[in-house]
Amino acid sequence: MSTPFIGKREYFPGIGSIPFEGRQSDNPLAFKHYDANKKIGDKTMAEHLRFAVCYWHSFCNMGHDPFGPGTRHYPWDVESTPLGRAEAKIDAAFEFFTKLGVPYYCFHDIDMAPDADDIGEYEKNLKHMVALAKERQNATGVKLLWGTANLFSHPRYMNGAATNPDFAVVSRAAVQIKAALDATVELGGSNYVFWGGREGYASLHNTNMKRELEHFGRFLTMARDYGRSIGFKGNFLIEPKPMEPMNHQYDFDSATVAGFLQQYGLDKDFKLNIEANHATLAGHTFEHDLQVASNHGLLGSIDANRGNAQNGWDTDQFPTDLYDTVGAMLVVLRQGGLAPGGLNFDAKVRRESTDADDLFLAHIGGMDSFARGLEVAHSLLTASPWEQWRADRYASFDNGPGRDFEQAKLSLDDLRALAVKNGEPTQRSGKQERYENLLNLHLSR
Amino acid sequence: MSTPFIGKREYFPGIGSIPFEGRQSDNPLAFKHYDANKKIGDKTMAEHLRFAVCYWHSFCNMGHDPFGPGTRHYPWDVESTPLGRAEAKIDAAFEFFTKLGVPYYCFHDIDMAPDADDIGEYEKNLKHMVALAKERQNATGVKLLWGTANLFSHPRYMNGAATNPDFAVVSRAAVQIKAALDATVELGGSNYVFWGGREGYASLHNTNMKRELEHFGRFLTMARDYGRSIGFKGNFLIEPKPMEPMNHQYDFDSATVAGFLQQYGLDKDFKLNIEANHATLAGHTFEHDLQVASNHGLLGSIDANRGNAQNGWDTDQFPTDLYDTVGAMLVVLRQGGLAPGGLNFDAKVRRESTDADDLFLAHIGGMDSFARGLEVAHSLLTASPWEQWRADRYASFDNGPGRDFEQAKLSLDDLRALAVKNGEPTQRSGKQERYENLLNLHLSR
Amino acid sequence: MSTPFIGKREYFPGIGSIPFEGRQSDNPLAFKHYDANKKIGDKTMAEHLRFAVCYWHSFCNMGHDPFGPGTRHYPWDVESTPLGRAEAKIDAAFEFFTKLGVPYYCFHDIDMAPDADDIGEYEKNLKHMVALAKERQNATGVKLLWGTANLFSHPRYMNGAATNPDFAVVSRAAVQIKAALDATVELGGSNYVFWGGREGYASLHNTNMKRELEHFGRFLTMARDYGRSIGFKGNFLIEPKPMEPMNHQYDFDSATVAGFLQQYGLDKDFKLNIEANHATLAGHTFEHDLQVASNHGLLGSIDANRGNAQNGWDTDQFPTDLYDTVGAMLVVLRQGGLAPGGLNFDAKVRRESTDADDLFLAHIGGMDSFARGLEVAHSLLTASPWEQWRADRYASFDNGPGRDFEQAKLSLDDLRALAVKNGEPTQRSGKQERYENLLNLHLSR
Amino acid sequence: MSTPFIGKREYFPGIGSIPFEGRQSDNPLAFKHYDANKKIGDKTMAEHLRFAVCYWHSFCNMGHDPFGPGTRHYPWDVESTPLGRAEAKIDAAFEFFTKLGVPYYCFHDIDMAPDADDIGEYEKNLKHMVALAKERQNATGVKLLWGTANLFSHPRYMNGAATNPDFAVVSRAAVQIKAALDATVELGGSNYVFWGGREGYASLHNTNMKRELEHFGRFLTMARDYGRSIGFKGNFLIEPKPMEPMNHQYDFDSATVAGFLQQYGLDKDFKLNIEANHATLAGHTFEHDLQVASNHGLLGSIDANRGNAQNGWDTDQFPTDLYDTVGAMLVVLRQGGLAPGGLNFDAKVRRESTDADDLFLAHIGGMDSFARGLEVAHSLLTASPWEQWRADRYASFDNGPGRDFEQAKLSLDDLRALAVKNGEPTQRSGKQERYENLLNLHLSR
Repeated sequence: MSTPFIGKREYFPGIGSIPFEGRQSDNPLAFKHYDANKKIGDKTMAEHLRFAVCYWHSFCNMGHDPFGPGTRHYPWDVESTPLGRAEAKIDAAFEFFTKLGVPYYCFHDIDMAPDADDIGEYEKNLKHMVALAKERQNATGVKLLWGTANLFSHPRYMNGAATNPDFAVVSRAAVQIKAALDATVELGGSNYVFWGGREGYASLHNTNMKRELEHFGRFLTMARDYGRSIGFKGNFLIEPKPMEPMNHQYDFDSATVAGFLQQYGLDKDFKLNIEANHATLAGHTFEHDLQVASNHGLLGSIDANRGNAQNGWDTDQFPTDLYDTVGAMLVVLRQGGLAPGGLNFDAKVRRESTDADDLFLAHIGGMDSFARGLEVAHSLLTASPWEQWRADRYASFDNGPGRDFEQAKLSLDDLRALAVKNGEPTQRSGKQERYENLLNLHLSR
Repeated sequence: MSTPFIGKREYFPGIGSIPFEGRQSDNPLAFKHYDANKKIGDKTMAEHLRFAVCYWHSFCNMGHDPFGPGTRHYPWDVESTPLGRAEAKIDAAFEFFTKLGVPYYCFHDIDMAPDADDIGEYEKNLKHMVALAKERQNATGVKLLWGTANLFSHPRYMNGAATNPDFAVVSRAAVQIKAALDATVELGGSNYVFWGGREGYASLHNTNMKRELEHFGRFLTMARDYGRSIGFKGNFLIEPKPMEPMNHQYDFDSATVAGFLQQYGLDKDFKLNIEANHATLAGHTFEHDLQVASNHGLLGSIDANRGNAQNGWDTDQFPTDLYDTVGAMLVVLRQGGLAPGGLNFDAKVRRESTDADDLFLAHIGGMDSFARGLEVAHSLLTASPWEQWRADRYASFDNGPGRDFEQAKLSLDDLRALAVKNGEPTQRSGKQERYENLLNLHLSR
Repeated sequence: MSTPFIGKREYFPGIGSIPFEGRQSDNPLAFKHYDANKKIGDKTMAEHLRFAVCYWHSFCNMGHDPFGPGTRHYPWDVESTPLGRAEAKIDAAFEFFTKLGVPYYCFHDIDMAPDADDIGEYEKNLKHMVALAKERQNATGVKLLWGTANLFSHPRYMNGAATNPDFAVVSRAAVQIKAALDATVELGGSNYVFWGGREGYASLHNTNMKRELEHFGRFLTMARDYGRSIGFKGNFLIEPKPMEPMNHQYDFDSATVAGFLQQYGLDKDFKLNIEANHATLAGHTFEHDLQVASNHGLLGSIDANRGNAQNGWDTDQFPTDLYDTVGAMLVVLRQGGLAPGGLNFDAKVRRESTDADDLFLAHIGGMDSFARGLEVAHSLLTASPWEQWRADRYASFDNGPGRDFEQAKLSLDDLRALAVKNGEPTQRSGKQERYENLLNLHLSR
Repeated sequence: MSTPFIGKREYFPGIGSIPFEGRQSDNPLAFKHYDANKKIGDKTMAEHLRFAVCYWHSFCNMGHDPFGPGTRHYPWDVESTPLGRAEAKIDAAFEFFTKLGVPYYCFHDIDMAPDADDIGEYEKNLKHMVALAKERQNATGVKLLWGTANLFSHPRYMNGAATNPDFAVVSRAAVQIKAALDATVELGGSNYVFWGGREGYASLHNTNMKRELEHFGRFLTMARDYGRSIGFKGNFLIEPKPMEPMNHQYDFDSATVAGFLQQYGLDKDFKLNIEANHATLAGHTFEHDLQVASNHGLLGSIDANRGNAQNGWDTDQFPTDLYDTVGAMLVVLRQGGLAPGGLNFDAKVRRESTDADDLFLAHIGGMDSFARGLEVAHSLLTASPWEQWRADRYASFDNGPGRDFEQAKLSLDDLRALAVKNGEPTQRSGKQERYENLLNLHLSR
């Protein structure tokens, strides 16, 4: 990727490819930790991290919030028609991907192509833009990590898409799912994501939750069947979120979705796409929800961002907290990596960050934070007593009656008999502070 | 229960049986709404509500909190030996149950009998007290709603009981589970509860969550097998709670536990005991977590209390918010009742409530609040358009292609074709405010 | 107000004036509790409650949220020019005010008149619309409770208005404050409100909080001086909010703003406008923040709405929780009323509430909830032992050494000597449960 | 402090003085960052940080929580009398202080000396222990950072101490305040702290908040007067906390207490002692509440710990998050230091941390985290563009009309005229991401 792709015009003039300059560099437009080809264990940083840029926040979102409109002016938005703007935007996007040096991107149908109430027009727009995207993928080597459909913005979905109380809306949602699956396959996407933005309820008063959940299970089954029928081989991913925009959302957290997938027999085809800020809104740490997904063999991909412990909504900030990135990479390294998933920056620069270089600064900060998190996690796992400490804690289950217990060879009576024989168990400190100190030690080396 | 049980001495002198006096009464020691024999639909209030008093908060808890010791002095605690205090306490308890007029109670092993590190002594103490309890049950007609074992207070369980990293502690936990199951069967308990107070983690750093959860599944299976082997016919119940005392608890909420039970094949024998304050700590309403349990056919029993939306810990206040009790009774009535479960007041008077009559006032308030909630919920369901409004909202699935969708007769392509044929769906207001007004209307009638 | 004001056309056809029909009525378009002329103590309900409709949510807000655009289509928005739409909207607004029967309304400058970057055009638009408003106020008798300026939506205010780090923006904010004060005086407004929507910080990293707060104090002083110079006799009001849109907002809660007003010598001219949902976002109950304001003699007016204890953002729902309205009216009645302030419905129908009558249903629900809250609070204060119980609790300070203490006649040594003399204090139960039961009793009568 | 103080026996055998070994050391019982004599700017680390160990958590608290008793067994608790245990404990404490190498400690009256309901006995016990403490201070050079009285644990304070509705309890509280002030003066304490653990309310229903707050102001005034009368020259400190144990606590946060101190004329003698975990419970960051205190010239001292963003109670964990310590040290360095205050570890090892060395590990982790925070904050302030970026942001107020505005030379009309003249302000990015990246850069160097 030595020559950034430039379309008809350059949208980020004055910014070239982002170099790796290392920890002593003061250059704000250089990586300090992320060196794509650096080996960490047996893989390169690029292979471990599989970064993706998201289309919606980076090229569509102008910074609106509930109390005011957008603040940013995008040079690709000066075109006079919706399709003209979409074509300019895709050039800007691929210029950005290549200058930044990320291998992947992600998109919703109506990020990339103009939406339309008329189904034919909507489908035509999307096909047109997908053809342009394919051309640019081929030209640059940038690949599609995942595609998805936006079933939450249009007013028709206000009461839900797949879980809408009106079957007419459920049907209308199928139009977009089909088109977005077609697009994902056409672009060679490795995964397909469902974020259930309006799948939930505003009020229990008017809601038949059980019936809506059954519709949800049915709808996802149909989508899975369609996807497989057109040759999609990748993972379907569900992205949990507990609330917002709805009062309650059905895909609350990893544990909830794992149970749902099992209940509807979808756990062979579906995995989870865990977003940091969604985990914290659900009352968990990011690492917790990753671990729960990984426990079930369902950790498929990550939306890398962060929330704000003082604010109760989805702030979608770029990930810069190294404790979070170390915690995430511990889970990822332990399960042997994320592929075919990756780390997608579902993050937006602040509404007040209005300079053209802010988008670069934000992504550089996020990529460096994960690169550093990878280094520290790898160091803890391979060059510290961390894993041995953990293993020792559970050693009593590795043989003897503890192993028999794990292997279902003992009854409750047997356990009681062992307790009577062995007397009061020895107290064992959890030694949490020792682990915390070790983590800080590796963080500051 | 016209004659209150009085043991060797009267522990609540000056308070007699609590009468029903109706909404115009000013008597603080009278019911305003709860009339045990009043018919609501085809059942009496007593049959609908199945109230239980909990042993621990009402007769053991003296009001300690993290910043100070207990404030209350119990007359039954003047006895000089542990067993003497336990014997006095059980008399006080049955005096209270009968004066209040509740049909059920609940207990932990070491609420009722003195704990001991020596297993033989512990088992002997419990058997002794169970015999006394049985005698008093027979004398009064008060029954056991559920029994349980306290596997969270003793320091040996600080790192978990069934999920402890040390097999010796897991074995020791089996001693109490066995004894408490024996006691529950001996006392004819309708249910047996597991609240996993230390089943969770203080820190992910030192925890192998997957391994701990597998131990949990195994342990519950063994307990189930033992219970069935000794003739227990009732429901095993798991009580979800998301945090406290542990940083994270494995039985986070209804959805998490439903998934867990399904994963370990326990969903035929186990149901859920939903506590209001635990639901709110998990970021849900009480009604929400009841409904999720009911969706899965798993709503077995209720711990009736309330939390405080301003404070982030388990305040275990008596339930007095009528919106909560109406919401709960809507779920209960729709599923046809709670039996063999009931409404257990897992609630404590405030640390500052130190008069002897405060315990009565608190229970009267809770019982009246649920009785009023029952009346209002019944009125909404049977004498208002509430249910019809909800049914109309989903009418498009009752026949035609909507029904075909529910019956898995359509593909994603079929749905798209219907959408193309039908054009843009008609917008339908959710009309949340109309439901809210109707609820308030019935509440103030 | 027997003949609702109808402008050029009727915007809410099919809906007439809302009648009072009482608690047994099933008519959704009738009041069940709110009877404007009913006497509660020595004032009518209308005099106690002083309801106002807000212009922004009711006539401008189409239901957008961070994840989707508006869902409602307003008939007044079909006009082809900004000013044409503004003129149609003001007719719709006064039609709504008069049909609903509320005596007051509130507005921001750019709700009522089209905004413009050109200062001259902005001022001209506002003057034009103010003239129309004045005409309609005269025709209907509806009055202005308060006016305000929107200094948070326009991108220029993204980093703050009065607290912007750039003096050019501070100056630009003065344009709107001056115009909105002029408009408020012209329309005979009783109050003028400052809600500091962007006065706060997104990040402490780039913020000089102390300097920004000093600018804030200075700016409010200048606004006060200007207002008084043009003959404004009413209260200036600050509306606290802890967060959203900013990460942290300077007017965090009642206590914070009371301290700020005192520090800058503004507490003679300024009072507080307390919003329920803002209080709960700050970790308080609505009643708490009202009481804190009232303690300082600063409770000036109320933004009547409610939040959602499960969601961490400003949901601005219509107030329907009777515990909230009873609590609020206890504070208001105890301080002798709210005038010249009132109860402004800073509330919006749900995004999914898209029928024309939903706006009426929502306001009817809110007005009835406060009318019922007023009745219950009045009943608790005048026909129950509630106030006597509270007074008795503090009786030891009404005479003797307790009174001496209050009157600053005792030293710490004197107190110690009294303690030595009197021995261990008698324990006194707080009896919280008794109050809770009494409240529920009056609520269900 | 090369020879640790050892009393009659050694309570932490096998652990010697903690050495500084630097970032590459693996020794868990060595400092990696904290080097007492290392110069950071013009002061040593010891002078900057002024660490103190707290008596209560480290030598009294055995690990109880609301769901179980303590887990730790302290060797000093084997003595047979309360005074014997207190004497052993003070030896253990000074052994710990000197082995760890901290210059300060803090205590409550009844941490150090046995409590007693009899006032004479209580006072005698305290005097006895203070004499022993003075002896040990002289022997070791360890000094008292602050003293305080525990007015929250004893049941008599359940409804408050200074704000108790019963004057008899207020008087009783004076006994302890007087004794603790006497002790603090005797021991040469630099500060005296008030943490209002029960000063607040459990329920607004039974509370006259205004009257209680006036009592609070009066009581603190009396305590101040007494302290000054006996020669106390240090700062009185109030420690804000928003809730827990009470539902609401009056000293909610920095802003609330700053307003209160100003209202009662106490802001010359009182400053604030800010605790990290209390700030986060109030919905702020630690850095925020420090900055607010510092804005008012009221930042007097720090209780160094941390909470848990997922749990809603005071977890009092040892501070290990470097973002927190950098943020805190930025505020402290900018205000020129904390003296005569310091950094007190109001933190406890986890209930599960039961080894004798855990107390050392926890303090080493906390001290290293603040030492590292100091280094990074110093580096940001003196060897990066951080402060210049911030200053540039506000440059428009440094001269010209911006300065005139700050100096109160302009009216609202003048501002409007400037806005008209200058036209639309230029948009300026807040560049939050740039600051975040710079912080991470310095953190990983």
